[in-house]
Amino acid sequence: MKTLAPLILASLACFASTAHAADAPAKPVTMQQVLDASKPSDWRRPDPNDTLYLDLPAGRVVIELAPAFAPLHADNIRTLVREHYFDGLAILRVQDNFVTQWGDPEAEHAERARAFGKASRTVSPEFERVSGPALTFTKLPDGDVYAPEVGFANGLPAARDPKSGKTWLAHCYGMVGAGRDNGVESGSGAELYVVIGQAPRQLDRNIALVGRVVQGMELLASLPRGTGALGFYEKPEQRLPIRSVRLAADVPAAERTPLEILRTDTPTFSALVEARRNRRDDWYKVPAGKIELCNVPLPVRAAPARAGD
Amino acid sequence: MKTLAPLILASLACFASTAHAADAPAKPVTMQQVLDASKPSDWRRPDPNDTLYLDLPAGRVVIELAPAFAPLHADNIRTLVREHYFDGLAILRVQDNFVTQWGDPEAEHAERARAFGKASRTVSPEFERVSGPALTFTKLPDGDVYAPEVGFANGLPAARDPKSGKTWLAHCYGMVGAGRDNGVESGSGAELYVVIGQAPRQLDRNIALVGRVVQGMELLASLPRGTGALGFYEKPEQRLPIRSVRLAADVPAAERTPLEILRTDTPTFSALVEARRNRRDDWYKVPAGKIELCNVPLPVRAAPARAGD
Repeated sequence: MKTLAPLILASLACFASTAHAADAPAKPVTMQQVLDASKPSDWRRPDPNDTLYLDLPAGRVVIELAPAFAPLHADNIRTLVREHYFDGLAILRVQDNFVTQWGDPEAEHAERARAFGKASRTVSPEFERVSGPALTFTKLPDGDVYAPEVGFANGLPAARDPKSGKTWLAHCYGMVGAGRDNGVESGSGAELYVVIGQAPRQLDRNIALVGRVVQGMELLASLPRGTGALGFYEKPEQRLPIRSVRLAADVPAAERTPLEILRTDTPTFSALVEARRNRRDDWYKVPAGKIELCNVPLPVRAAPARAGD
Repeated sequence: MKTLAPLILASLACFASTAHAADAPAKPVTMQQVLDASKPSDWRRPDPNDTLYLDLPAGRVVIELAPAFAPLHADNIRTLVREHYFDGLAILRVQDNFVTQWGDPEAEHAERARAFGKASRTVSPEFERVSGPALTFTKLPDGDVYAPEVGFANGLPAARDPKSGKTWLAHCYGMVGAGRDNGVESGSGAELYVVIGQAPRQLDRNIALVGRVVQGMELLASLPRGTGALGFYEKPEQRLPIRSVRLAADVPAAERTPLEILRTDTPTFSALVEARRNRRDDWYKVPAGKIELCNVPLPVRAAPARAGD
């Protein structure tokens, strides 16, 4: 059967390749070769205090929070999680080629809505980043339709404007954001969405992105689409229950999902980008020579458990 | 609950909007207003000879072939369909954020593979278009990472190079292509894939795109992801059976799915693009002012049945 074989995107799924560029026999040229040649220091372990486990009946989704961009939202989400706010809530909305969203089905009914406890009901907008500790920023070479510059900041797809000095996260596949109403201060992190289709970059700078799904995207992307307006499920029984959301730091070591994520500020990552810009295998006839921000894979791999995980 | 309310993408799902730009009160400014103001002549009915019905247990997927770009593949697919080649075959592969693919599970076993009948086993590559009847081309204003120019050609997302005079279809969400092996002549249309994630534009000009799903994408995008290499289903029972694939022209009028698709060579379409470049509703705070090719919706609506459909 035809396999489109070399076309693995945005995952660590690997493919066999026998291709070596004749003019650079010793240089890694495929993504797999780049990863095979990577060093342990090319990988990082997400901080357990920034790692959420969204446990669904079908399995676990692992989300890495982005406190470098959305510290207030990350704090509020940690508070919500520690109060077990999400446990027993549900996935409410799956809109094809757009987002999967979860939260409290009764959020709009004050008398039935789940209590926020110590968490805030609204959080200041964190749509752009103008200050804070220095970010690493690995700029991509091929430009972008939406922003003056794009690349990877602290491991996440991001854009920036050298004129204003602002940096912001980009709505690529797998990015997680905090739903809001019309007011810019109306988000809280109690209702979250994840991008499951073509990157809706028009959302950039309009809503707080708070993290990224680093494992389990297939569980959120393969759900039945809601048939109501905006992809909301129309009947309560269509909603998918959330067993629990926990912070990895609060989970016993034996129940954790130890992962390593490829750093984006290393020569290895730059080599991976280059390998994806110019595919060199038998299948490709016209290498693109370019890459768009949201087409750059961010490899994740299982890590051996170790003390403290 | 937070709804990200104005964010409907790539479908005809509509949203209520009360926003009118103060400086242009009579001019449509939201996508819905543009569609509401459209004329019957802004819409076209796909040719029944170019329309496939992929009937699955969960419902019907409607695919419009693109003979202006891939006439040989379209012809071969029509032949395969008329020989009932696909009936009883299966969806074989669902790779998250990439493609859903269908065909003959036994294609690689000559003794068990389904016969091609009068159809060809290979079709000449139709990766780019250099000649043929004139195309309409509505160029987008914001550029592209991958190609010198992008826009919509005969209703489909496309790219072109003014220097070479070549035009090619772009791998946006919902685009359907003909799988091939390593040889450029190895595709036939007997194994087809559809894009279900971030546009894999690196495939452009490397494989023949043969059409677009115009209805039913959610049936192909919400399938369980395959756990084998490249997202192939590992067990035969995981495959989703195809009831039948038929050409609309061969289906009795009462069994057809009459649709209208917004033309892309009209002022109405240009107004829609503009409405999406600069969202004007209460939710958006920073309109993008730009749009990427694969973020432009291609509205489809039910059409009243009429004689000859």
